[in-house]
Amino acid sequence: MKIVILGSGNVATHLTLALSRQHNILTVYSRNRDNAEQLANKIKTKATNSIKEIPATADIYIIAVNDDAIGTVVDDLPQLNGIVAHTAGSIPIEALNRFSNHGVFYPFQTFSKDKDIDLSNVPILIEGNNAETFQKLNDLAVSVTNKIYNVNSAQRLTLHISAVFACNFVNYFYHIAETLLKEADIPFELLLPLIDETAQKVHITSPLNAQTGPAIRNDRNTIQKHLKVLQNAGANDLADIYSKHSKEISELYRHDNPTK
Amino acid sequence: MKIVILGSGNVATHLTLALSRQHNILTVYSRNRDNAEQLANKIKTKATNSIKEIPATADIYIIAVNDDAIGTVVDDLPQLNGIVAHTAGSIPIEALNRFSNHGVFYPFQTFSKDKDIDLSNVPILIEGNNAETFQKLNDLAVSVTNKIYNVNSAQRLTLHISAVFACNFVNYFYHIAETLLKEADIPFELLLPLIDETAQKVHITSPLNAQTGPAIRNDRNTIQKHLKVLQNAGANDLADIYSKHSKEISELYRHDNPTK
Repeated sequence: MKIVILGSGNVATHLTLALSRQHNILTVYSRNRDNAEQLANKIKTKATNSIKEIPATADIYIIAVNDDAIGTVVDDLPQLNGIVAHTAGSIPIEALNRFSNHGVFYPFQTFSKDKDIDLSNVPILIEGNNAETFQKLNDLAVSVTNKIYNVNSAQRLTLHISAVFACNFVNYFYHIAETLLKEADIPFELLLPLIDETAQKVHITSPLNAQTGPAIRNDRNTIQKHLKVLQNAGANDLADIYSKHSKEISELYRHDNPTK
Repeated sequence: MKIVILGSGNVATHLTLALSRQHNILTVYSRNRDNAEQLANKIKTKATNSIKEIPATADIYIIAVNDDAIGTVVDDLPQLNGIVAHTAGSIPIEALNRFSNHGVFYPFQTFSKDKDIDLSNVPILIEGNNAETFQKLNDLAVSVTNKIYNVNSAQRLTLHISAVFACNFVNYFYHIAETLLKEADIPFELLLPLIDETAQKVHITSPLNAQTGPAIRNDRNTIQKHLKVLQNAGANDLADIYSKHSKEISELYRHDNPTK
């Protein structure tokens, strides 16, 4: 298929690299000409920072810009015969209503520019405003992954929220752990087997069943000891987080498993 | 080496299975006779629920009971020639002072009874009250893992706190994500590639560098949209958590990376 990519950030970069293997990327557009060129050069195609230079002949236009910028790009694009799809978790399909064929092509993953990702294992969530559009986006998804899901805009929004908890906040807690270890002169690598096992566990059992630690045991001695260390180190913000989530976990298991 | 295991919980179980491959587990002790027998049967050794029946001839006694129960076990044990070591993150080595040779043998991992773990990749943190004890505990650790760390009791306590954030609270957030997905009729498996990648990323870059999502971009539109969904669903507790940590992440990156 002939594809135009609009955007040059993390999602645009990973999608462009993956799609270019089996498809013809006609042009990479970005407001910032340097960024457009940098990405276009990786796959030896054209770059532009002018919406007017975008070819009208593509089968699919993929809008992979920041959520805040999608509205402007949609307004600036001319009418197009091809499919226009965005890649955002929290934007409903209706945002693209002005195009006769439109949809969503949302790769459900955390992308950083400096880390390669094998997209074949990444779920792609698609939506289309008609059967033909859905089918074409499905075909495009098949060319990069074997995990394709048909979810509506409300479900996609909920998925995005769940990702904030299971990825963004999780990574923030990795950061807190790293900060604590640095203070105690302990290398962060010591945590990696624990981080990996915590992630691996929920492949075979539900998180509710996988919970360990002082809070689920309602082990007040240990919890108090930990809080004291944080408070003595002047980390009252971390003590607050520790205390709040420990309480929530203890409550959760008192209700769910009265025998524990 | 000749070893006695005191305890029959998750840590005791995994350690007993791993140590029994190269060592002679003389006895498994637990307050609860059934639990002691269940574990002892797995490696065809003796079980007891009486401290008095514990043999005096072991080289090492490993106390792997709940933190709260360590004091009682220590008080009840007779004087022993062998090394007495506990496996707790938050208990200082001094808790075992009444034994002439004592130390700590702390496997830094999250253990569940129903999931096998390859201990060879698990860091074991050791401490000993004298050089000979340290060396013997080191030899024991070498027989199960290639990751051995010499950390003192204060460092071990900090490590344990960091594990609460990077494992216990992380798993709690997996649980929140699962709850949200269930409400929206989306299978939890959809999250697994994201969970795995979030864990994998911090193997090659620091969490501070790996952060993604609306909070680091200070994307207020998306954050407000997410909060509204949670509030409309009556999940005000989750909205509070979402709001609090989003603010913390936005603040963190405003301070650390003024250009982002």
